[in-house]
Amino acid sequence: MNKDIPVISLQRLPVYLNYLKSMPSDRIYVSSGHIAEALDMGEVLVRKDLAYTSAVGRPRVGYVKQELIAALEDFLCCNGRRSAVIVGVGALGRAVLGYGGFHNYGIEIVAAFDSDLKKIGSEVAGKPVYDIAEVGGKVKQLKAELAVICVPANHAQEVAELLVKSGIKAILNFAPVMIKAPENIVVRHIDVAANLAILSSMI
Amino acid sequence: MNKDIPVISLQRLPVYLNYLKSMPSDRIYVSSGHIAEALDMGEVLVRKDLAYTSAVGRPRVGYVKQELIAALEDFLCCNGRRSAVIVGVGALGRAVLGYGGFHNYGIEIVAAFDSDLKKIGSEVAGKPVYDIAEVGGKVKQLKAELAVICVPANHAQEVAELLVKSGIKAILNFAPVMIKAPENIVVRHIDVAANLAILSSMI
Repeated sequence: MNKDIPVISLQRLPVYLNYLKSMPSDRIYVSSGHIAEALDMGEVLVRKDLAYTSAVGRPRVGYVKQELIAALEDFLCCNGRRSAVIVGVGALGRAVLGYGGFHNYGIEIVAAFDSDLKKIGSEVAGKPVYDIAEVGGKVKQLKAELAVICVPANHAQEVAELLVKSGIKAILNFAPVMIKAPENIVVRHIDVAANLAILSSMI
Repeated sequence: MNKDIPVISLQRLPVYLNYLKSMPSDRIYVSSGHIAEALDMGEVLVRKDLAYTSAVGRPRVGYVKQELIAALEDFLCCNGRRSAVIVGVGALGRAVLGYGGFHNYGIEIVAAFDSDLKKIGSEVAGKPVYDIAEVGGKVKQLKAELAVICVPANHAQEVAELLVKSGIKAILNFAPVMIKAPENIVVRHIDVAANLAILSSMI
C-alpha cells in the first residue's frame, strides 16, 4: 500500500468500491464526476482519492469500471491474505463471525476466543471457539494479524494487552471504551452508541 | 445543535467525551493540549472542535473537566431525548439491543422489528419485537426518529424505504450494502468488513 494516503482518504475507498460494485454489470466506463454525484461528494476529492490507487482514468470517458474495482481491491488487500480472530463470542461476536464480506477484502476470520467454558470447544459460523487463555499460542499458530474485540467494556483493555502480546498488529474495537495500545499497533474504535448520537445530532 | 459543525469534527466529539469520562474522577481541569497529546491529535484541531460546544476554556488551566463533559453531552444530545428502533433481530440486532451506552447520548431503543413469526411478539433485552408490517403505525405511535438497520444486505434497501415512509429521520445502516434515501434523511453506514480492511491496509 501507498503509506502516504491520508486515513480520511483510505476510509473512503471501501465506499467507492461498494458503489462501483452496485452499478449495473454492463456498465463499462465510470467517471470521477459520476461517482462524485452519486455519492454526493466533490469531484476533485474523488479524483484525488482514486489517484492513490493504480487506476488510470482516460480523457472524457473516465475509468474502466472493472479496472477501477480491481485497483481498489488491490489497494485494500495489497498485502495479500490476512487472518483475523474475534475475541468475545456474545451476540456481537456471533454477529461478526456470521458477517459476510470479509473475503472481499482478502480477510479470513480463522478463530474466536472466549472465557466461557460453555462456549470453548464449540463452533460458531463454522469457526472454532478457543479458550482466551490459549490466545498467545493460537494467534502465532494461525498467523493471525488482525483482531476484533467484542467483549464488554470492562474487559476490553485486558484483552487488548493479551492480543498485543500475542503478536496481533491491528485491533478493531467494538467495546464502548477506548483502549490503549503501543504506537506500532493500529487501533480503530467502532462505538455504536456514538454513531447513533452523531446521527441524532444531525437531524 | 450548531449545524455549522463539520461532520468530521462532530465525529470526534464522542471520542473526546469517552476520553474525558475515562480520566480519574478527582481530576478538575483538563487542557486542549493534554487531550491532544492523549489522543495523538493536533492541539489546534482539538481546540477548534471544542469551540463548537458551549465549553469555555480558561487561560493556563484549560477547561473544567465536568463542564466540558456537560457541554459535549449537551451538544450531542441537544435536541432532547430521542427514540430509536432496530430492524432485524438476528445476531447483530440482538447485539445492538443489548448494547449499553445509548442513554449516555439521550437515546432510547424503544422497539425492534422482524419478519420472522418466531421472533414477533417476543422480547429481546427487554424490548418488544413487532412485525415489520406494522412499522409505519408503531414508529408514529412510539415517536421514534432514529432507526438501526441490522437486516441482510438484500433486504436493506426495502427496509430503508419502509422506515422513511414511517417518518424515521435518520438511519444507521449495518447491512454491508449502500442504501439510498431522500436528501432530508440522514444516513450513516457502518461496514464492519470495510473497517477491518482499512485496518489491514494500515499495518
